[in-house]
Amino acid sequence: MMTKKTMLSDIEIAQKAQMKPIQEIAEQLGIFEDELELYGKYKAKVSLQLLNRLKDKEDGKLILVTAINPTPAGEGKSTVTVGLGQAFQRIGKKAIIALREPSLGPSMGIKGGAAGGGYSQVVPMEDINLHFTGDIHAITTAHNALSALIDNHIMQGNELNIDPRRVIWKRVVDLNDRALRNIVIGLGGPMQGVPRQDGFDITVASEVMAILCLADGIEDLKQKLGKIVVAYTYDKKPVTAKDLGAQGAMALLLKDAIKPNLVQTIENTPAFVHGGPFANIAHGTNSILATKMALKLADYTITEAGFGADLGAEKFFHIASRYGNYKPNAVVIVATVRALKMHGGVAKTDLALENVEALRNGYANLQKHMDTIRQFHLPFIVAINRFPTDTENELQALKEMLEAEGVPFAMTEVWEKGGEGGIELAQKLIAIVEKERRVHQELYSLDQSIEEKIGTIAKMVYGADGVEFTSTVKKQITQFIENGWDRLPICMAKTQYSLSDDPTRLGRPTGFKITIRELRPSIGAGFIVALTGEVMTMPGLPKKPAALNMDIDENGTIRGLF
Amino acid sequence: MMTKKTMLSDIEIAQKAQMKPIQEIAEQLGIFEDELELYGKYKAKVSLQLLNRLKDKEDGKLILVTAINPTPAGEGKSTVTVGLGQAFQRIGKKAIIALREPSLGPSMGIKGGAAGGGYSQVVPMEDINLHFTGDIHAITTAHNALSALIDNHIMQGNELNIDPRRVIWKRVVDLNDRALRNIVIGLGGPMQGVPRQDGFDITVASEVMAILCLADGIEDLKQKLGKIVVAYTYDKKPVTAKDLGAQGAMALLLKDAIKPNLVQTIENTPAFVHGGPFANIAHGTNSILATKMALKLADYTITEAGFGADLGAEKFFHIASRYGNYKPNAVVIVATVRALKMHGGVAKTDLALENVEALRNGYANLQKHMDTIRQFHLPFIVAINRFPTDTENELQALKEMLEAEGVPFAMTEVWEKGGEGGIELAQKLIAIVEKERRVHQELYSLDQSIEEKIGTIAKMVYGADGVEFTSTVKKQITQFIENGWDRLPICMAKTQYSLSDDPTRLGRPTGFKITIRELRPSIGAGFIVALTGEVMTMPGLPKKPAALNMDIDENGTIRGLF
Repeated sequence: MMTKKTMLSDIEIAQKAQMKPIQEIAEQLGIFEDELELYGKYKAKVSLQLLNRLKDKEDGKLILVTAINPTPAGEGKSTVTVGLGQAFQRIGKKAIIALREPSLGPSMGIKGGAAGGGYSQVVPMEDINLHFTGDIHAITTAHNALSALIDNHIMQGNELNIDPRRVIWKRVVDLNDRALRNIVIGLGGPMQGVPRQDGFDITVASEVMAILCLADGIEDLKQKLGKIVVAYTYDKKPVTAKDLGAQGAMALLLKDAIKPNLVQTIENTPAFVHGGPFANIAHGTNSILATKMALKLADYTITEAGFGADLGAEKFFHIASRYGNYKPNAVVIVATVRALKMHGGVAKTDLALENVEALRNGYANLQKHMDTIRQFHLPFIVAINRFPTDTENELQALKEMLEAEGVPFAMTEVWEKGGEGGIELAQKLIAIVEKERRVHQELYSLDQSIEEKIGTIAKMVYGADGVEFTSTVKKQITQFIENGWDRLPICMAKTQYSLSDDPTRLGRPTGFKITIRELRPSIGAGFIVALTGEVMTMPGLPKKPAALNMDIDENGTIRGLF
Repeated sequence: MMTKKTMLSDIEIAQKAQMKPIQEIAEQLGIFEDELELYGKYKAKVSLQLLNRLKDKEDGKLILVTAINPTPAGEGKSTVTVGLGQAFQRIGKKAIIALREPSLGPSMGIKGGAAGGGYSQVVPMEDINLHFTGDIHAITTAHNALSALIDNHIMQGNELNIDPRRVIWKRVVDLNDRALRNIVIGLGGPMQGVPRQDGFDITVASEVMAILCLADGIEDLKQKLGKIVVAYTYDKKPVTAKDLGAQGAMALLLKDAIKPNLVQTIENTPAFVHGGPFANIAHGTNSILATKMALKLADYTITEAGFGADLGAEKFFHIASRYGNYKPNAVVIVATVRALKMHGGVAKTDLALENVEALRNGYANLQKHMDTIRQFHLPFIVAINRFPTDTENELQALKEMLEAEGVPFAMTEVWEKGGEGGIELAQKLIAIVEKERRVHQELYSLDQSIEEKIGTIAKMVYGADGVEFTSTVKKQITQFIENGWDRLPICMAKTQYSLSDDPTRLGRPTGFKITIRELRPSIGAGFIVALTGEVMTMPGLPKKPAALNMDIDENGTIRGLF
């Protein structure tokens, strides 16, 4: 099964890719020259004027790629997304892939990029995985400029009466830096600021990132930035970025970051890689501007949402689609034999051994995600992303279970074979999508109470029996209603590893309740974050960080990136 | 004197500029297409391969622009530098300007960019003054990645035996953020890092910035990064970035930032804008790679060094020229009637009133800087940068003083008239430069002791009677000798406002000593920083930060940037 070429690393495969000049890719899509800003030869930003020019053009079809709950065994969701785009192109369809941009933190920490893998990658991968076009740095800067303005305001007379104990706007850095999680700032005496407790999150957890991905233009961006709640006064009234007068400068700092980035795959399929909010604390999808552009330019847009369907897809339907005003035509659920076996109880070290029984047990996790998509009234197909260690018996068992339910599925081998390995999936998807259009149905309406909305997600998407709200949260709900924040969608912050809020419960857990420990207002982004358990907003580095293997020599040869 | 066009703001003038596509500018310089990486239509990075291709070509002439000690009255050194480049072009000479890139901190804080002014600006100024090509963000990231690796190392077993009380590598952010000057990190319990005192500097004060500006290629960059001293062990041995294995990842993060940025002036004169170390805590000049490229591509390279000749020019001669292995052919000393009057005792509010006597008193400051340049054995010319409030009597008095000494000078009106206003200066400079070549002579040799080197600068450049070393510094000198760090050049950290270490002593103070309070090893950059008095490495925001006036609308119109 393993051919020789699969032995190359991702970076080696990526660097052998025959990239086309990005102008050529853009021209084939019908992007005008003056709508394109080059960043080197193979990256470009696309002007928002394009959306205005094509506003009367009909949208293409939108395909959302989601997955079962992730495990250390790997599902390859991004790789399937890229491979599927390449497959569409191979069968003569005009397709664009829309992905999130990767954060530097995980790249420097744990080996692994976020630009697909093997023969299904977006390129230039070393740029995409490092600074790319500077979007994340611009977000870091806009976020921290607001932080500096808050502390300066408190220092310089504090006209807004901000309570330094109730500043909820932390600082950000696009690195994994555990020592910055909890800090005390403003030490050193009266000329050095007002001391208070603070902390850093990773940039992709910033509300500014979420806003950038949900805004539909500069003006909307500025409105949303202005609504960010940064602190409370001594009498507990919310203080916004607009109260501080920060939204204009922040929007100015984001003037280029808001423009979608166009790149290509190693098979020259166009890809927008733009915006990258975390899928646990934020909504986990690429920017709506990039998706909208793709829908105008291509017949098929393939996008993905972070983690499993319980997190990314749910938020895609309730948050991103709602604000973007677009509807997916079909869903792909990615599963692997290896990951299903882990959901069925197999340890990571035993994955190479055949275990059909564990596979049958773990299948329940996939079943729940299929049920979830059915509840949204959307057609779907399961992509079995094949690994070399999968046995015929295992694959046969999985196929039989899917056939027994009458569920469409296709095998993919996109890591090893690129677009060629996704053609079956692409063809079956086209058949599904070209049938009568089904429109997804949201599971809750915005008019429902915060408790009802969270309850609906917990029961219908996670399979929970109900929800416990801590006394803190009950008080917060009262305050949120007073502040007029209760009519927003909910952004659940939950572990990605389990359908429940306990990361150790794999498969399809039952008989559990979800506990909501805290609500956080993301009023600028336009949602309420509901936190279950501990949610990591600043990762740490492992004992041997990937950064220690990275290198570049005088000829530009890169080592250790992925 | 004041014409109507001078009433436009810098951003209005800049946005009316008729920019040429940057490829056209590059082509005229003889840069090959494959040596150019576009960042939008008007910015590009130039490949280091160019230096290899042109290594046998003779260098052009190098002109260094410096100034008297700055005052709030303004001298316009950057504006003269840009205007002079434009003037060279107007009289048919092939000239390139080499400037530093501005930091976002001051832009967001105090109204004012760092890309020249009026009709002598580099453009696109709004990009140059915001994220530009991302160099400073890359430096921030490389710096903070090293910080994260240090704290992670301490957390994960601390094999190197780093004393958390003796970590000297702070973190950085490219903003003015006073509350981050003194912080405590690693709070929150055993899983959240090891608590210790820390702080943030502004990125342009980072040793990584100094290294980027002094490196002559990727390999040299990596070597220098590896030598950065980040901490001491419990037995007081230095710990370097290389000991942590960080230099490869840091170099990788800087792979694009090291390439010089090519832009143009509003009169289409080519300009490299690359690197921007602070001129007080660091060496204050643009990158040696940019200067070297300019020398290969043009007949005249015009560069500037930060603040007055006591800081920027001294470091240019002793640090940048030494590591860059180039020698300036002539020096321009910029002075204004307004600033000389302040040096002569006039308050800022009285500058519009004629005061020839104060001008005569303040002239002593200019005289000291002329004496300094004479000690380096370099030809120079004084540029009297004219302001509309200067009276004929004042200008006449200044001219007479300069004529009495036999000093060459020229009047410039580059803010108002662009290159046209610098033609007299350009022509006189050419006459000076085309005479026999004088090679500057360094005032100290590296073999001298730390005390001798500092003593030489204090006496010969500042006019001090001597130097006091605190007992802390005396101990440090012993340690530095033990560590083998005493044969490096000195980077003085001193107030820019006075020749002495007391910012209130204007003019040409006498009868003073300089006190050295602390030494800091910048072994990666290759110098020892000697601190006199309090030196600000993290500025604060004023009560009404410039950021609060900034805005951008749906059409991209920018307000309040400068």
